[in-house]
Amino acid sequence: MTDLRDKYRRVRTRSEEICATLKTEDYVVQPVADVSPPKWHLGHTTWFFETFVLKPVNGYKEFDPRYNYVFNSYYETVGVRVVRTNRGNLSRPSVADVYNYRRYIDAAMLSLLESTLSPEMTQLIILGLNHEQQHQELLAADIKYILGNNPLLPAFGEANITTPVVPDKNWIDMNCGLYEIGHQGYGFCFDNELGRHTVYLPAYRIATEPVTNREYVSFIQDGGYQKHQYWHAEGWDWVNNNKITAPMYWHAIDDEWWCYQSSGLQLLQPHDPVCHISFYEAAAYAAWKGMRLPTEFEWEAAASQFSWGQRWEWTNSAYLPYPGFKRAEGAVGEYNGKFMVNQMVLRGASEVTPQGHSRLTYRNFFHAPLRWQYTGIRLAEHI
Amino acid sequence: MTDLRDKYRRVRTRSEEICATLKTEDYVVQPVADVSPPKWHLGHTTWFFETFVLKPVNGYKEFDPRYNYVFNSYYETVGVRVVRTNRGNLSRPSVADVYNYRRYIDAAMLSLLESTLSPEMTQLIILGLNHEQQHQELLAADIKYILGNNPLLPAFGEANITTPVVPDKNWIDMNCGLYEIGHQGYGFCFDNELGRHTVYLPAYRIATEPVTNREYVSFIQDGGYQKHQYWHAEGWDWVNNNKITAPMYWHAIDDEWWCYQSSGLQLLQPHDPVCHISFYEAAAYAAWKGMRLPTEFEWEAAASQFSWGQRWEWTNSAYLPYPGFKRAEGAVGEYNGKFMVNQMVLRGASEVTPQGHSRLTYRNFFHAPLRWQYTGIRLAEHI
Amino acid sequence: MTDLRDKYRRVRTRSEEICATLKTEDYVVQPVADVSPPKWHLGHTTWFFETFVLKPVNGYKEFDPRYNYVFNSYYETVGVRVVRTNRGNLSRPSVADVYNYRRYIDAAMLSLLESTLSPEMTQLIILGLNHEQQHQELLAADIKYILGNNPLLPAFGEANITTPVVPDKNWIDMNCGLYEIGHQGYGFCFDNELGRHTVYLPAYRIATEPVTNREYVSFIQDGGYQKHQYWHAEGWDWVNNNKITAPMYWHAIDDEWWCYQSSGLQLLQPHDPVCHISFYEAAAYAAWKGMRLPTEFEWEAAASQFSWGQRWEWTNSAYLPYPGFKRAEGAVGEYNGKFMVNQMVLRGASEVTPQGHSRLTYRNFFHAPLRWQYTGIRLAEHI
Amino acid sequence: MTDLRDKYRRVRTRSEEICATLKTEDYVVQPVADVSPPKWHLGHTTWFFETFVLKPVNGYKEFDPRYNYVFNSYYETVGVRVVRTNRGNLSRPSVADVYNYRRYIDAAMLSLLESTLSPEMTQLIILGLNHEQQHQELLAADIKYILGNNPLLPAFGEANITTPVVPDKNWIDMNCGLYEIGHQGYGFCFDNELGRHTVYLPAYRIATEPVTNREYVSFIQDGGYQKHQYWHAEGWDWVNNNKITAPMYWHAIDDEWWCYQSSGLQLLQPHDPVCHISFYEAAAYAAWKGMRLPTEFEWEAAASQFSWGQRWEWTNSAYLPYPGFKRAEGAVGEYNGKFMVNQMVLRGASEVTPQGHSRLTYRNFFHAPLRWQYTGIRLAEHI
Repeated sequence: MTDLRDKYRRVRTRSEEICATLKTEDYVVQPVADVSPPKWHLGHTTWFFETFVLKPVNGYKEFDPRYNYVFNSYYETVGVRVVRTNRGNLSRPSVADVYNYRRYIDAAMLSLLESTLSPEMTQLIILGLNHEQQHQELLAADIKYILGNNPLLPAFGEANITTPVVPDKNWIDMNCGLYEIGHQGYGFCFDNELGRHTVYLPAYRIATEPVTNREYVSFIQDGGYQKHQYWHAEGWDWVNNNKITAPMYWHAIDDEWWCYQSSGLQLLQPHDPVCHISFYEAAAYAAWKGMRLPTEFEWEAAASQFSWGQRWEWTNSAYLPYPGFKRAEGAVGEYNGKFMVNQMVLRGASEVTPQGHSRLTYRNFFHAPLRWQYTGIRLAEHI
Repeated sequence: MTDLRDKYRRVRTRSEEICATLKTEDYVVQPVADVSPPKWHLGHTTWFFETFVLKPVNGYKEFDPRYNYVFNSYYETVGVRVVRTNRGNLSRPSVADVYNYRRYIDAAMLSLLESTLSPEMTQLIILGLNHEQQHQELLAADIKYILGNNPLLPAFGEANITTPVVPDKNWIDMNCGLYEIGHQGYGFCFDNELGRHTVYLPAYRIATEPVTNREYVSFIQDGGYQKHQYWHAEGWDWVNNNKITAPMYWHAIDDEWWCYQSSGLQLLQPHDPVCHISFYEAAAYAAWKGMRLPTEFEWEAAASQFSWGQRWEWTNSAYLPYPGFKRAEGAVGEYNGKFMVNQMVLRGASEVTPQGHSRLTYRNFFHAPLRWQYTGIRLAEHI
Repeated sequence: MTDLRDKYRRVRTRSEEICATLKTEDYVVQPVADVSPPKWHLGHTTWFFETFVLKPVNGYKEFDPRYNYVFNSYYETVGVRVVRTNRGNLSRPSVADVYNYRRYIDAAMLSLLESTLSPEMTQLIILGLNHEQQHQELLAADIKYILGNNPLLPAFGEANITTPVVPDKNWIDMNCGLYEIGHQGYGFCFDNELGRHTVYLPAYRIATEPVTNREYVSFIQDGGYQKHQYWHAEGWDWVNNNKITAPMYWHAIDDEWWCYQSSGLQLLQPHDPVCHISFYEAAAYAAWKGMRLPTEFEWEAAASQFSWGQRWEWTNSAYLPYPGFKRAEGAVGEYNGKFMVNQMVLRGASEVTPQGHSRLTYRNFFHAPLRWQYTGIRLAEHI
Repeated sequence: MTDLRDKYRRVRTRSEEICATLKTEDYVVQPVADVSPPKWHLGHTTWFFETFVLKPVNGYKEFDPRYNYVFNSYYETVGVRVVRTNRGNLSRPSVADVYNYRRYIDAAMLSLLESTLSPEMTQLIILGLNHEQQHQELLAADIKYILGNNPLLPAFGEANITTPVVPDKNWIDMNCGLYEIGHQGYGFCFDNELGRHTVYLPAYRIATEPVTNREYVSFIQDGGYQKHQYWHAEGWDWVNNNKITAPMYWHAIDDEWWCYQSSGLQLLQPHDPVCHISFYEAAAYAAWKGMRLPTEFEWEAAASQFSWGQRWEWTNSAYLPYPGFKRAEGAVGEYNGKFMVNQMVLRGASEVTPQGHSRLTYRNFFHAPLRWQYTGIRLAEHI
C-alpha cells in the first residue's frame, strides 16, 4: 500500500503545516461554539484513526483511554464526550501531548500500512484521510477566526494566498431537461454524494463568476442591510439582533473598507470574490439584484462550464438525502445523515480547501447564519 | 358579488364558532411563543381586512389607529408591532373590544361587497378569507394547547370529532418518471404553490394510510426515544433537552396511555392516526421502520391514489421556492417567501382544517420541533 | 370573636374592591415574572386560609384539591406548585371560579369565627389577614404594571389618590448612642420584626421629606444616568443593559415628562415624591447629592420625627435576621427567614398600603432592580 | 525606599512563583466567567502599576497602548475593555508577551523606586502591591479550578500545603456590649476597613475552630442537601438547578469521598476544615446544627481569641459601607465601594492568602453561590 502510506503521510503532515505559525496559546482557545481549538482538531482527527482503524487491530495498545472522552466529536455510538462548547476550557492535554499522540498514532498507522489490508480497512483509512482534510479546512477557518477576533489582529501567514482577480461576469444559459446528479466512478466520495440520480431542471441562467467585493459594496451602499424586503424573516432578525452591517472581518476605517487576512489587516481588494458571508446575506444580495441563488442541482449541472474553487458557494438547496440514501451501520454511519435537517448546501471549494479534496459532486453544508468559512455567492435566474 | 358576500359571512362566522365554548380568560393567555391568544387571532384576521382592503377605500374611517400596533403579525412594510412573545401580556383590547372591532369591520366589508369591485380587490378579499381560514386552524390548535397545558385539563368541545378508524395499510408503487407539481386552474391558491413545473421522481412506494397510535406505541415500547441511531442530531438533542418520551398530549397513567382531547382526557384510541408529533419524531419513526418520509413531490404525485386529510403529514422536503417563484410587491409579498428557510413542508390537511380550505397542492410549513398542530406520519421508501 | 370576624370581613372585602374596575382579562395576565395575575392573588390569599386554618379543622371539605397546586406560592412544605413564571399561562380556574372559591372559604371562615378559637388559631387567622393585606399592596402595584405596560395605557381608577404636596425639606440631627430597634407590645407583627434589640448608631442627619420629582428631574438633567461614578457596578450594568433613563412609568413626550397613573397618562407633578425607582437609582441619586441612604436602623430611630407613608423608602440595609431570629416550625416558618439574602430593606409604607397595615418597625424587602412598587428616596448623611 | 523596593520585588516575584508549575496552555483558558486566565492576572496586576503609577510619570513610554483594552478589569474611568467573559477567548498577548510586559514595567518601577516619591505615589504603589496580593489569591483559586475541572485532573503542585488538623471545637462566650470595629493604626488597609466605629453586640457564642470535613459529611449523610428547611429560598433553587450534592472538588468514588487538591485526587481528610463551599451551604449547615453564622462584627470582636487563617469564613453580614464611608475620587475610588450590594462578607484568610496580607479587619466579599475560593464555616449562636 505504498500509495496509501504516502498519502497518509502527506495528509497528516499538512495538518501540522497549517498550524506552523501558531503560538502555543493559539491552539487552545474557542471564542465561539462553532470554532474549535486547533489542538482539538489535531487530536480529534488522530482519535478517528485510533478509534475506527487501530483499536479493532489485535494487539494495539490505546494511547490514553481518557482521550476518547476528550476527542470524540459527536459519535453517540462511541460514548460520552466533552460537550462542544467546553472544548476551549481544557488546557490539557497540552499541545505537546497532542503532538505526541499524533506521533504515536502515526507510527502505528504507518506500520499497519505496511501490511496487507482488507478492502474495508482501506476504505476506512481513506475515509479517515478525507475526514482529516475536512478538518484542515475547518482548521484554516478557525485559526482565522481566533486571531481575527483578537483585538491585536495578529498576522498568521504570508501575504494572502493570491486569489486570481475575478474577470467580468458572463452568463451561461442552461436548457431545461434531465440531468444526472451525484458521484460516479471509483474514486472516493462521502455517502451523501452517492445515489447518482436523474433530476429535471427547468431552463435557467447561471453566472460564470462569483460576486466580487466591489459588487457587494454597492449592495451595502444601496442600504441593503437596512431594507427588509431582500431578507428572509429569520435573516432580518439575525441582521438586527447582531447589528450586522458588512461581511465578517470587514472593518470600516476612515471611510475605507479594510479586511482582516492571514497577513493582518489589509485594504479591501475590490476584484476579489466576496467572502465570509452568511446564507442570509447571499440570498439578500441575490434578491437585491432581482436574481436568486442556484439550487445545488443547477450548480452541479453547469459547473463544468465555469471556474470554481475560490469560495464555497451558498446554494438555495437544503441539505437533504438523495433518493435511496441509507445510513451505514455503526459509528461511521453517523457521518452525514444525521445532519440532514436545517442546514443549507454549499458547493465548490475554497482557497483553503486541501488540494485534491474538491469534487464537482461534493456537498458541503452549514447553518444559514454561519460566516467563518470562506463562503461566497454565484447568481442564477429562471429563464 | 353575492357569492363572495356569502363566503365572507360564512368564513367570518366560523372563526367565532370555533371560540364558542371559550371563557373570556381563555382568549387572553399565550403559554408559549408559538401559541397566540385567541383574541389576537380574531383581531389580527380583522386587521388584515382593515389594513389591506378597507384603508385604501375612500372615506373609510379607521376603527382605532393603535390596533395597527397591536394586531400586526409580521408585516415589516406596515410598521412596528407588539413583539410576538408579548401577545399574552396584553389584557386590552378586551375580548368585547375585539368583537366590536369585528362587527365594525364586517359592516364596512359587507357594505363594500355590495359595490362593484376591481379584480385586484376581489383577489385581496379572497386572500383575506384564506388567511382567516389559516388562522382558524391555528385557533383550533392554540385553544387545545392553552387548555391541554392547564393543570385542570378542561374540555372545550363535544366528544372528539370522530376520525374514521384507519384501515389496514397498503402500499402504492409509483413509477419513475416526470410528474407535474404545483397549482393549476383558476381557483385560489397561495403564491408558494404557483409555478407548476416538472419534476423527475425515481420509483418509490408510499403508504395508503397514516401511521396509527398502536403502531407508534410499538416504537415507544421498542425504546425508540432512547436509541440515537433513529434520530437527526438536532432531534436527539431536542429529545434529551426536553425529556420527550411520547407525542404531545399523551399521559401515561397507571400503565395506560391517555390522550387529551376536546372532550378532556380520554383513553388513547389505538386505531386513530398518531397526532401532535414533531418532524424529528416522524423521521425517527420512519427510520425505525427502515423506511423514510416521502418528499412533498412524491406526496403530491401519489395523493390522488390515497385518502388524506386527517393529519398534516410531515414530508422530508424543506420549504423552498418553486422554480420561478417571485415575491409580490408590497406588504402582501411578505406572505410566504420570507419564511423559505429552515422549515419543513407538511402536506394534506387535518381534522381542524376548515372545510373547502384543503388542496392537493397546498404547502403548509412548520419548524421541525413544533407539535401543537395536528401532525402525523405517512411512510415511503425507495424501490 | 366579633372583632376578628369584622376585621376578616373588612380585609377580604378590600381585596375585591381593589379589583373593582378590572375587566376579566386584566385578572389573567402576567407581563413579567414578578407581577402575578390579580386572580392568582385572590386565589392564593384564599388558599392560605384554607390550607393553614381550615384544612386542620375536623369535617372541613376541601373546595378543590387541584387548587393546592395552582395557588401555592412558595411553601415547599405544602408540596409542588405551578412555577411562578407560569401563573400567567393559566386561563383556568376562571375569575368566576376564583370568586366562588372566595365565597366558599369566606363562609367556612365566618362560621369558624363564630366558635371559640384557640390562641394559636386566632394568631394564624391574624397572620392570614396581614398576609392578605401584603397581597393587597402587591395587587395594587401589579394592576398598575399590567395596565401601565399595555400600549393603550388605560385608566383603572379615579384621578390619582391625592398625595399631599411635599413641603420643603428640613433635616433632623440624630445623636450618636444606643437605640432600641424592633417590635414591642402586644400588637401583630411579622417574625422578622421580633427580637427587639439595641444598636449603637453614630451621629447622623436625616431628611424630613422624601425626594420629589422635581429634584429627581435635576439628577436626570445633570446626566445622572450617564455617569458611572454614582452607581453600584451592578446598577451600572442594569442601567445599560435595560437602557434605563428615567423612573418606571415616566414618558418623555415633546420635551415634557408625563407619568402613568391610575387615571391614565398625566403630566408629571413636580412636588410629588419620586416613585417607582430601583434601589440602584435611589443610591445613585443620593451619591449625586453627596449623601447616602439611611440604614434601616437610622430610619427607625428617627421615624417618629418625620412624616412617612407615601413611599416605601429604600434603605442601605440588606435584609438580614435580627439577633436571635429563629424560623418557626412548619410551613408558616417559611414566611420570612428564607428570603434573608440578596434583598434590600424598605421602610415606611406607600399610598397603596392598606390602612392599619403600616408600622414603624415594618421591614419590607425587595431585590435591588425592582421598581414596580411605590418606592422612593429619603436622604441621610454622616455628621 | 529600599524597603518598598524589596517588597515590590518580593510581591511581584511571588505572582510568578504561583504559576511556576503551569504549562503555557494553563495560562490561557477561562472555564467559567468568574475564573480568569492566569496570564490575564499577570497582565492586569502589571497594568495597574503602569496605568496608575507610571503613566503619570514624565517621560514614561507606554509598553503597548492596546494592553489598556486587554488588561483593564472594571475601571470605567479608564475606558473600554474586553468584557470579562471574553478573557479566555484571547490567545494573544501570548504568555511570553505578558512576561515581557512584566519585565518592562518592573524595570520602570524599580527605577522609579530609587527616586524620592511623594506620599501619594508611595501609597498608590502600596495599594498596587496589595492589589497584586489579592490577585495572587485569585490566581491560586483559578489555577485549581482550571485543572480541577479538566477531565485529566492533573496535579499542579506538591502534596497539598499541610493544613494543621483541626482540634476539638470549643466555644467562646462573648458578652453583650460595645465593641470597636474597623482598621486602626498606620499600616495599610483597604478603604472598606476604614472608619473605625462602635457597634453594640448582644451576647453570643462563637466556635474556636472551623467545621471539619467529617462534620460536614454528617450533614450530607443526614440528607442536608435534600431538606429545604435548612436553606435560603435562592440557595434551594441553586442546589436543585445545579444538582449540588457536596462541596466543590469532592468526588464520590466507590462509597468513599475523594477530593481534588494541588497534588491531584486524594482521599478526603476528615479532620481538615471543610473547604470550597458557597454561602448557601455554610448557612444551611449552620441551620442544620441549630446554630447560625456569625456576623462580621461578631467575628472581628472575638477573633483575637481563636485561631483563624485556614479558610475564608462566610459571615451572615452583607457587604455594606461602614458609617462615613466615602469613595475616593477617580479610578482608584472604584476599588471597593461600587461592589457594596448583593455580596456577603468573608472574614479571616485562607491557606493560599499571601503571607503578610491577612488582617483581623480585612473584609473579603463574594457572591453567595461562589465556591472556588478556599471558603469554610465557623459556627455561632445567640445566648
